[in-house]
Amino acid sequence: MLGLSGGIDSTVAAYLAAIALGPKNVLGIMMPYKSSSADSVSDALTVVKDLKIKSMLVNLTGSVDALAENDPDILKNKVRFGNIMARMRMICLYDQSNEHKALVLGTGNKTEILLGYSTLYGDSASAINPLGDLYKTQVWQLAELLGCPKQIIKKKPSADLWTGQTDEGELGFTYREADELLYYMIDQRYNDEELVDIGFKPAFIKTIRAKIRFNQFKRVPPIIAKVSNRTINVDFRYNRDWGS
Amino acid sequence: MLGLSGGIDSTVAAYLAAIALGPKNVLGIMMPYKSSSADSVSDALTVVKDLKIKSMLVNLTGSVDALAENDPDILKNKVRFGNIMARMRMICLYDQSNEHKALVLGTGNKTEILLGYSTLYGDSASAINPLGDLYKTQVWQLAELLGCPKQIIKKKPSADLWTGQTDEGELGFTYREADELLYYMIDQRYNDEELVDIGFKPAFIKTIRAKIRFNQFKRVPPIIAKVSNRTINVDFRYNRDWGS
Repeated sequence: MLGLSGGIDSTVAAYLAAIALGPKNVLGIMMPYKSSSADSVSDALTVVKDLKIKSMLVNLTGSVDALAENDPDILKNKVRFGNIMARMRMICLYDQSNEHKALVLGTGNKTEILLGYSTLYGDSASAINPLGDLYKTQVWQLAELLGCPKQIIKKKPSADLWTGQTDEGELGFTYREADELLYYMIDQRYNDEELVDIGFKPAFIKTIRAKIRFNQFKRVPPIIAKVSNRTINVDFRYNRDWGS
Repeated sequence: MLGLSGGIDSTVAAYLAAIALGPKNVLGIMMPYKSSSADSVSDALTVVKDLKIKSMLVNLTGSVDALAENDPDILKNKVRFGNIMARMRMICLYDQSNEHKALVLGTGNKTEILLGYSTLYGDSASAINPLGDLYKTQVWQLAELLGCPKQIIKKKPSADLWTGQTDEGELGFTYREADELLYYMIDQRYNDEELVDIGFKPAFIKTIRAKIRFNQFKRVPPIIAKVSNRTINVDFRYNRDWGS
C-alpha cells in the first residue's frame, strides 16, 4: 500500500508495486486537504484505473484544522503546515497498514532523501522504499519506460501544499542540475577539486554539500545516549532482522 | 523540549534536561485526549512546578476524533487508536520543535525499545534520547536518585490510553523479569543455554527473543531497494553528520 499524490514518485512506485505484487495486492490511498489541487486526486485516480489497483480516499482537512485550532499560526507558516500535512498522511497510511496487514511503500527518491527535501516521520517514513536509490531524473526515465500517464510525467514536481508551489522553485535549482552533481559527489565520491575540474561551480557544490550535511538527522534513527556496554544503534546494529 | 505524560520516563527525562540545560531551556508539553486520566496532567504539572520548566498544553481530542470520522473503527481498535495517539503527539512535539527551534527529547527506555513496546514514528521518534540505554528498572532507580515525585515513581506504568491499562498487564510479564533477562541476553550476550543455566525459563527466553526480533523494523530507517553503487543506509551510513 502507498499514498497516491498524483505526482511522479508515487505513480512510479504504484506501477512497480502492481507489476511486482499484482494489482489486487496494491492499495493506493489519496489523502487530500481542502487546498489540494483538484488535479492531484484526478491524476491519482487515473493511475488507479490504469493499473486496476484498489484505492481509498481519506480527507485530512478536519484533522489538520482541528490541530490548528490549538495554534492558528500553524496554517500561516508554510513549513509547519507542510510538515503537519506530511505527518498526518503518515498517520493515515500506517493506520491503514495495520488494518490491512500491508506494508507501507516509500515514495521518496534519492535526490529528496540526500537533500533532506522531505519531512522526517512524514513522507520519509516507510517500511520499504523502491525509489530511494533512484535520482529524480532516473524516476522520470523509469516513468517513461513503464508507460506512466503523460500528464503526470509532464507536470512540475510539487508537494501540492499551496497554489503555485513547485519543488524546483523552493529548492532554487533544477532536479537535473542537482542530480548530475549528486551522482559525481555521492556515487562516484568525487572531491570538490575534482567536481570543479569537470565543470561544477564551487558555490553550487557548497550549497548541495550543506544541504546533505544539514539533513543527515533525517536519515538516521534517534541518537541514544550511550551508558551501557551495548547500546541500540551503536553496538546493537542490524540492518534487517536481529538474530538472523 | 519533551512530552510530559505524568509517567516515570518523561519525568526522569525532564529532570535530566533541567539539570543539563537549565530549567528555562526546557519546555514540557502535555497532550491529553478526552479519555486521559486526570492524574496524568496533574502529575505532569507537579513536575513542571518542581523543576520550574516551561510548559504548554495541547488537546489532541479534536484532531484524533476528526481522523476517526473517516473510519469510526479507529476508536474501537485499541492498537489503531494507541498508534494514532502516539503519532499525533509526535506531530505536536515536532511542530513545536520547529516553532521553538528546540530539539525533541526522547523518553523511551531500553526495555521498551528492545521489546518494541512503542509506536514507530510516534513515541519512538526523537532527536536525542537520554533514556534509551537504561532499562525500565534503571529508570526507576534514577528517579529515586533524582528525587522525582513519589506518586509518579509508585504508579503502575501505563500508556494511559484507556482506563485500567497497564504496560505489564499488556506485556504479560513484569519489567523486572524482562530487564533481568534482557541484561544477560543483550548486554552480556548470553546464549539460550547459558540463560537457562542461570535460571531463566526456556519459554520466557523464547517470548522475549521473538519480541526483539519481530520489532527490529522499529529500530532501523526505511529499507531502500539497492540499485546503485552507493545506497543510503547501506553504503552511505553515518551515525551523526555526513562529511564530518
